[in-house]
This record gives sequence, C-alpha cells and structure tokens, in this order.
Amino acid sequence: MRDFSADHRWLSINTATVRAQWPLDRIIGECARRGIRAISPWRDQVAVVGLERVATLIRDTGLELSGYCRGGMFPAATAAGRQAALDDNRRAVDEAKTLNAACLVLVVGGLPGALAGHAEHKDISRSRAEVSDGIAATLEYARTVGMPLAIEPLHPTYAADRACVNTLEQALDLCDALDHSRSGALGVAVDVYHVWWDPKLQSQIARAGRERLLAFHVCDWLTPTRDLLNDRGMMGDGVIDIPRIRGWVEAAGFSGYSEVEIFSTQDWWQRDGGEVLDTCIARHRSAV
Amino acid sequence: MRDFSADHRWLSINTATVRAQWPLDRIIGECARRGIRAISPWRDQVAVVGLERVATLIRDTGLELSGYCRGGMFPAATAAGRQAALDDNRRAVDEAKTLNAACLVLVVGGLPGALAGHAEHKDISRSRAEVSDGIAATLEYARTVGMPLAIEPLHPTYAADRACVNTLEQALDLCDALDHSRSGALGVAVDVYHVWWDPKLQSQIARAGRERLLAFHVCDWLTPTRDLLNDRGMMGDGVIDIPRIRGWVEAAGFSGYSEVEIFSTQDWWQRDGGEVLDTCIARHRSAV
Repeated sequence: MRDFSADHRWLSINTATVRAQWPLDRIIGECARRGIRAISPWRDQVAVVGLERVATLIRDTGLELSGYCRGGMFPAATAAGRQAALDDNRRAVDEAKTLNAACLVLVVGGLPGALAGHAEHKDISRSRAEVSDGIAATLEYARTVGMPLAIEPLHPTYAADRACVNTLEQALDLCDALDHSRSGALGVAVDVYHVWWDPKLQSQIARAGRERLLAFHVCDWLTPTRDLLNDRGMMGDGVIDIPRIRGWVEAAGFSGYSEVEIFSTQDWWQRDGGEVLDTCIARHRSAV
Repeated sequence: MRDFSADHRWLSINTATVRAQWPLDRIIGECARRGIRAISPWRDQVAVVGLERVATLIRDTGLELSGYCRGGMFPAATAAGRQAALDDNRRAVDEAKTLNAACLVLVVGGLPGALAGHAEHKDISRSRAEVSDGIAATLEYARTVGMPLAIEPLHPTYAADRACVNTLEQALDLCDALDHSRSGALGVAVDVYHVWWDPKLQSQIARAGRERLLAFHVCDWLTPTRDLLNDRGMMGDGVIDIPRIRGWVEAAGFSGYSEVEIFSTQDWWQRDGGEVLDTCIARHRSAV
C-alpha cells in the first residue's frame, strides 16, 4: 500500500468539491498552483468555461483527469428518451476523449422521472435492463475512441432517482456480461461513500482486480447525515475506514489517484475554496 | 398470492405509525374497533403503559402481535456494554413472550456511539462479529422460552448508527451460521423500505423460505426523501413495487400479516391518528 503521508502526488480533486466557490478555470489554476496533479471535472462545469478552453488549460497546466463526470442516466419512459440518453452519452465520451480523461464515470440512472419527484413506473428491474442496454451501446462507441467506461455503483439511497446499480457485485456482474475478456474498456469507479457499508466489499474489490478498478473516490460518511445528497464529510470526519478500503483496492492492483469528491451544502461549500483544497491535501496525507 | 383488496384481515399496525398521536393503550383500542387483528408494539410504548396492562389489553381485545420491537443493538465499545446489551435482549425476549408475539425483531446495532454522533471506532467488521455473537447468545435463551428472533436487515443508510446487517443475503448468512437446521427459532423481518433496492432481493427471499420469513413490513420510499429516518411514505405514495415483493414473499411460503410501519415527522405523525389508521386500511387493500 502506497504511503500517502509525505506528499499529495496521488491526490485528485473532483471539481464538484469546490463548485460552489469557483468556476472550472479558476479551480484548475488553484489546483495546479498547489501541486495537485489531477482533477475530475463535471460536464456542466466544462460547458460553462468551454470545452476547448478547458482542454487548453489542462494541457498548459499538465493536469491529468482521473475521470470525467459523467455519463449514464440511461433509463427513460420512452424509446425517444432512451435514444436521447445514448446520444448524450456519445457526446460525453467525446468530451472525455478531448480532455484525455482516464475514464468516463457512469451514474447509470434509476426510475425515469424519480429525480423530479414523479417516477414514471416502479419497475426497477426494467430500469436495470435499460441500463445494461445503454452501457452496451455506449461501450460499443467508447471502444472505438478508446475511452474506458467506469460504472459507479451508487449507495442504495439513490436507487430510485440516480442509479439502480447499487453494489459493487452488481456492477461487476454487468462488466462480466458486457466485457467478458476484461479488456480494460469497462470497469468500475469505487467511491467509499457509496460502498463502505457493503459486507461483500472486500471480496468484490478483489474480484474486480486491476483491469476493472478504474477510479477510486473518497470522502466520508457523517453521523448524523443531515441531507441525503449534499452532506458528505471530509475524509477523517466520518465513520469510513478509508485506509482499509484503499488497502484492499491497492492489493487488487489499483495504482491511480485518490479522488476527493465532497458535496456539502452546509459546510464545505460555505468555506473559502482555498481552505477546502488545503484541507483536502492535509487529509489526503493523514486520513486516506 | 392472497387477495388483499376485499378486506384487511392480514393488516398489522406497527404502533410507531401512530406513536406521535396516541399512547399504546389508545392505539390498541383504536385498532381493535377498526377490525385490525394485529399490531407490533415498541418496548418504550409498552413501558409507558405497563407490560401487564398491555398484556391484559391484548388478551381482552384478541389482538395478535405480528412482532415485538425490538431487540438488538449488540455492539459496544466495552465488554460491560456488550453484557448489558445481552441482558437487555433477554428482557426483550421475556416481554415478547409475555405478549405472545410472533417474533422479537432485532435491529442489530452498528458502530458503538455512532447513533449519538461519536463513533467509538470505524471497524464495521468488528461490529458485525459482535452482532453474530450477540444473536447467538440471545438465541440460546430465546430457544428455551420459544420466542423466534427475526433479524431485520436495515437499509445501508443506517449501517453506521442502527444496524450493520444491511442485506437480506447477509441476514440469511447469519441465520444459516447460527441455526443451520432451519428450526424456526431464527429468521428475518423483511421490510420493503430497507430491501426494495436490492438486486438480489427476489433470489434471497426464495432462499429464505417459509422457515426464515418471520415478518413482512411495508411502507413506501418517497422521492425526494427529506429525512434519513423519519420520512417514510404511506404505501402507494412512493416508488416501491410492494405487490411484487409481497408476491415473492408469499411464493416463498409466508402467510402472515403485512405490518405497516411508518415513521413520518412531517406528514403522518402530524395527522389525526384515526385518519392514519383508516388510510393504512385503505392502502393495505389497494397498494399492498
């Protein structure tokens, strides 16, 4: 297991962590001048600044992209809706390629309409079948441009509205079905926030192995958690034994960045962006 | 699958559903006069009225107890704490027996201290081992008095502070380890709120079978959910396909009550208790 205590060379910042404070061009500059070597930006943040300008900034600063957020959201109530999702995922693959991302992260979607509070149906198995079909179609295109897809199993709390892939086992079953040869084109993003509770976590990380472990995300689970989506904690402030999980991931062959992704309406998004990044650096060394 | 549309003979009311409105003696009377045949009371509600008085009321009204809430909370930071938990579970078994409950429901506990916001450690595997030991010890006693124990896997949202048994598969693994012969002394409580998202739900319900399926709880998952604990929905108001899950449970051999358990600070706990019970009856017929 790598020693993170002496530096932050393996720290990546998911740019949602300081999205409330700064636009993406500023985030890139603030990360670069702190010696942070990687980021993972969101599509809407890229769109605000402009894809080409972001690509230029990435090149000029030498930053890497540990991932690109995000594709997915495949299920829809209509065939037209599902086709629109596929088209949008193709664009996401292209953007990820333009920015030379390590992978495109997939938040696969749940019950159509649930995110807006009005689910179109309650058949989660139908959504899961649509997710499988959507990933298969996107994978076909992503292979042609050489962009790995990382399925992110989301915490079961988000099963209805954000992602109906909710365990690492389920994500790996999808990977095995759609990329039997473990080609590297399809894998998983392991976010400790989503998977820390899973009694099968250690065995499924071992099953994933190097070829399937495309991204590793960290933050912490607070007790109490005051908001289902936007009350993630800074590493060390919650109950997740992050070093133990990182140990499992590295034992399975992962050697990439540890990406900090914190959504925090009441706390970290209220603070100065520089303080947030400096804290991420410190906690990366002490609590990851 | 039983037809619930014509009456509510298989409806049970978990008394937490109207705990904000009425004490337990009133709840018993209100249920009985509506032809509700079963309840599942909580220990603290029983304590307020008095165990013997509740037992008398239960006998006089002819109500059954589909379960008794609850035992569990086994993990503790110290040996003395774990012993205190075992002692308390023994008392819970005795109370359940006095009230002639169908089972004692176990909410097994999580990381010691997490419920108060200060986890004593982050080792969930240690808590899981303590849970296994605690159930084993309680089972030994419960067998002597003939009180079945129902492990309730809780939604992963509660893994830190309430229960580190978070999937039906995990609960059934415990059952197999501690009651290999499927004696009926140890089983599970399947609450749709906790398990609806699980991609392995159907197969694990089938695995459980008649001997392990000791209780079936219903409510609904709202989108959005505004509070992690106390924003459960009335059946039909959320995204859970309850009839489908009930179909699986009954196909596996379950033929008991469908117990409504709704914690709802902002909605159902604000309404008149009679309205809540009448709605439970109506939704039991239309949405369960």
